[in-house]
Amino acid sequence: MNIALDMMGGDFAPLETVKGAAEYVATASAGIHLTLIGDEVQINAHLASHPIPADKYTIVHAPEVIGMHEHPTKAFKEKQHSSIAIGFQLLAAGKTDAFISAGNTGAMMVGSLFSIKAIEGVLRPTIGAYMPREDGTLGLLVDAGLNADCKPENLNQFAILGSLFAKYILNFENPKVGLINLGEEEGKGNILTLATYPLLKENKQIHFIGNIEGRDILLNKADVLVCNGYTGNVVLKLAESIYDISKRRNMDDAYFNSLNFEQYGGVPVLGVSKPVIIGHGISHAMAFVNMIRIAYRMLDTDLLGKMKDSFLGQA
Amino acid sequence: MNIALDMMGGDFAPLETVKGAAEYVATASAGIHLTLIGDEVQINAHLASHPIPADKYTIVHAPEVIGMHEHPTKAFKEKQHSSIAIGFQLLAAGKTDAFISAGNTGAMMVGSLFSIKAIEGVLRPTIGAYMPREDGTLGLLVDAGLNADCKPENLNQFAILGSLFAKYILNFENPKVGLINLGEEEGKGNILTLATYPLLKENKQIHFIGNIEGRDILLNKADVLVCNGYTGNVVLKLAESIYDISKRRNMDDAYFNSLNFEQYGGVPVLGVSKPVIIGHGISHAMAFVNMIRIAYRMLDTDLLGKMKDSFLGQA
Repeated sequence: MNIALDMMGGDFAPLETVKGAAEYVATASAGIHLTLIGDEVQINAHLASHPIPADKYTIVHAPEVIGMHEHPTKAFKEKQHSSIAIGFQLLAAGKTDAFISAGNTGAMMVGSLFSIKAIEGVLRPTIGAYMPREDGTLGLLVDAGLNADCKPENLNQFAILGSLFAKYILNFENPKVGLINLGEEEGKGNILTLATYPLLKENKQIHFIGNIEGRDILLNKADVLVCNGYTGNVVLKLAESIYDISKRRNMDDAYFNSLNFEQYGGVPVLGVSKPVIIGHGISHAMAFVNMIRIAYRMLDTDLLGKMKDSFLGQA
Repeated sequence: MNIALDMMGGDFAPLETVKGAAEYVATASAGIHLTLIGDEVQINAHLASHPIPADKYTIVHAPEVIGMHEHPTKAFKEKQHSSIAIGFQLLAAGKTDAFISAGNTGAMMVGSLFSIKAIEGVLRPTIGAYMPREDGTLGLLVDAGLNADCKPENLNQFAILGSLFAKYILNFENPKVGLINLGEEEGKGNILTLATYPLLKENKQIHFIGNIEGRDILLNKADVLVCNGYTGNVVLKLAESIYDISKRRNMDDAYFNSLNFEQYGGVPVLGVSKPVIIGHGISHAMAFVNMIRIAYRMLDTDLLGKMKDSFLGQA
């Protein structure tokens, strides 16, 4: 199992990426090999203080870096020797099995959609966000901002992809799917949710529990929370701001602390044909450890194979 | 100035409506007369313990009540002797100047839209929600759920209506209008926000500051927060749930306490031709005091006249 990590991605790279990789290897099960992509000199310098056994990793030198504020499509096309571009080249060629980066999100999306492509039958891949609940579990919000405008069929597919992720990675045996709406009753909604409801209701691949409201998002009423990417992005950033407010007000409450999204590492791009995980720009070592763990679990459970099976015949 | 109050609306009516009316009158400026609409026997029974000077109020008996869970249109049409229906009859006939109820929200909307109608030129009235910020001020979110689907012209009008409310009722000299979006840059957005941005930018009646993100909703970056009613409703209910969570966790923080929306009383229907305020179902006396105060201020500042002027020539 060969998991590749963009060592140059994120505000604290490469120090924190090296630390994360070293911490992960120290506790990892056998059979995992890390491919560390980035500036060889810098990586080696940090490895001196945070060593990894030589048989556990390979460095692939990348002389370029895509900056956080560069134009994604342009940078991805022009910087073919950047750590992100090389990461996707290796993944597409089957030389690595998963790719993780906390770098330029847009460039990661360009790579996900154009270098490795969507699973056959998936109309639009999606990006999820964890929603921490009071009971300590994590729900999954899909879409968290990749698809600003959605069609009912998109939301229906997000529900399938999100349910598989919730089952195999978040460990819900039969994840409950809720449609985020402005009322609980079946007849409530906007044009999109009204048209989506019957699709979810008839979808035998998911456990649909009906509409949920804004007040239910941080509860465990549903494990997979489905909405359009515009609304999902507003919800995610509003929830993130609650953590910031609680810190400014010197609070130290376990639940409000759990709204520190940085700690969860990153969210996978769901619906693309290989495991790709995009991290938060301000990721520290713990976030990278968590992202490598998620990538490992995605491979170990053959999540992608299960997703492909789900969309067989829908192409 | 004759402000009418539905004495039967809300979970704790008529005791709390009577208490609220009495508390208001005790501190009110001269020249205000309250019209108390509801069951005369019950109102008088409570007035015995919470008296109001006889020249300050008139009771209008309403033998029927529209229940919280009745079908709004049906109930409004069939129960012509209900407190809500009578409230709108008096308002439409000019016998009262404003109408307040914490009763069936749907029935209040039916009355607002069909008994007293929209301001000429207003395509769709809207309902706002207060957004409490860390600095203690209240922002205004429009739309909070009345218009699940919106067109760019709707959002542009909500911005005008919200700005006038923010100026005259919330006391912002030049309220900043922000468009809730999934990125700050002008080119970001979904179909609706991309088409709305230029309208807001060119609108000389408002002080548009650009896009704001979910993380800015509880800050004072913008005073009037514009979005479609589906997303606004999700945002409002998510914010409400933060208060509930903080209470379940035994927190007592001034800011999180300010997310107790009940205390603000109610939000006005903006864009209809007379002042109508719809309260939260669980309103207590303080909420009714605040709603009467807002109605008074709407009349005192001639907010409706200013709104009508804004839409002159747009009909």
